[in-house]
Amino acid sequence: MSERETEPADPTLESLRQRLTEFAAARGWEPFHTPKNLAAALTVEAGELLEVFQWLTPEQAGSVMSEPDSAHRVRDEVADVLAYLLQFCTAVGVDPLTALAAKIERNELRFPASGGGSGPGPGSGG
Amino acid sequence: MSERETEPADPTLESLRQRLTEFAAARGWEPFHTPKNLAAALTVEAGELLEVFQWLTPEQAGSVMSEPDSAHRVRDEVADVLAYLLQFCTAVGVDPLTALAAKIERNELRFPASGGGSGPGPGSGG
Amino acid sequence: MSERETEPADPTLESLRQRLTEFAAARGWEPFHTPKNLAAALTVEAGELLEVFQWLTPEQAGSVMSEPDSAHRVRDEVADVLAYLLQFCTAVGVDPLTALAAKIERNELRFPASGGGSGPGPGSGG
Amino acid sequence: MSERETEPADPTLESLRQRLTEFAAARGWEPFHTPKNLAAALTVEAGELLEVFQWLTPEQAGSVMSEPDSAHRVRDEVADVLAYLLQFCTAVGVDPLTALAAKIERNELRFPASGGGSGPGPGSGG
Repeated sequence: MSERETEPADPTLESLRQRLTEFAAARGWEPFHTPKNLAAALTVEAGELLEVFQWLTPEQAGSVMSEPDSAHRVRDEVADVLAYLLQFCTAVGVDPLTALAAKIERNELRFPASGGGSGPGPGSGG
Repeated sequence: MSERETEPADPTLESLRQRLTEFAAARGWEPFHTPKNLAAALTVEAGELLEVFQWLTPEQAGSVMSEPDSAHRVRDEVADVLAYLLQFCTAVGVDPLTALAAKIERNELRFPASGGGSGPGPGSGG
Repeated sequence: MSERETEPADPTLESLRQRLTEFAAARGWEPFHTPKNLAAALTVEAGELLEVFQWLTPEQAGSVMSEPDSAHRVRDEVADVLAYLLQFCTAVGVDPLTALAAKIERNELRFPASGGGSGPGPGSGG
Repeated sequence: MSERETEPADPTLESLRQRLTEFAAARGWEPFHTPKNLAAALTVEAGELLEVFQWLTPEQAGSVMSEPDSAHRVRDEVADVLAYLLQFCTAVGVDPLTALAAKIERNELRFPASGGGSGPGPGSGG
């Protein structure tokens, strides 16, 4: 986490979620922000992030942040994914931090730390 | 944001990001957690969230949280998407909150609030 | 299926698959065309097709082909999805038509035609 | 293309497209098969195909067809992707073979065969 910008104070996830809600309201975009549309938009943006990496070798992928254009693109797509995830959470009334904390606890039981090395399971969050 | 569980204190995004890093380290999963693999996993999980909604009418989609099974599934997929997004951010050294704050500021210039009602632009985060 | 162009003869799926193989070989692209990269590219392109529809109401989505720009975009993304699917099949040695015929037969047993109206099941191909 | 099964004759893409249309009609699934829903389902299934590969090294990904379980899963997801692509094409009235042939011709102009080795461009279908 090396980035710092001239924000007056570090934003929290909740403050950004509220800014996104106000942003959409000020533009009359709420009718578009159904759970289904936002889940689709989230998937589209995740695909755009993956697009940056699709033809890269593991070595090339590891240095994507040392090139300004691709670094900007990665930050931009991370922002889009997080924006749509937060707007989706607003639309369905889910607290993303609580959901993730609960999932980590389930995964700590499901994948004991001494467990074998066959790699992360599907949907493990690990 | 109506959910509350018996967490000792509200988790922050940064504390969950660190827990995920420790979780992966304790299981020897770091070699799998390349930027490319995590971007792929993020897209897969976003697709699983979309799967919940793919055949639903807007009305049905709006009531997905009132049915316990689909509500659990939605929370579970939100957690997976957020987990892989945070692990991706760790792998590339991006602060997701800073990235999103910067994107919102760019979008406030790009989409003035009085602007027309043709709906959210692609990648608008709006 | 209303489109007709000045092709000397209707192309077959197999002839297009071979043209794609030759196209990639002539440009030295085979090293990029691993199964994993092609599965990623396929997902990215499917997301780009979905992007055309993400904010549209069912009514708007139904008339997307009557507007030349969006009609071109849809045809272009359909082509990309099919191209990457065929190249993926080449990379792993799967015949897509045989795979689909086998799946339809399994689905005819799994979803009897008189069955209830709760909608297509996940991965039903239906 | 090494697979052969006991099909009476090799199916064509068009015959499978028609079988899928009849399959959906016999089950009353047409109302679900809007362009938007089918584009979403296509993306979801592409993600499921990618899931098979998400944690694999290039070497592991290359041998995924030599293990019966993963080989079956790959064939099954290929079938699902192709099924939804064909059903999408039916819903919007696009001929996928004509669309792909046109795209290959555009790409032959856009990416001359003697061109440099920076790899496949985005959406190149190449």
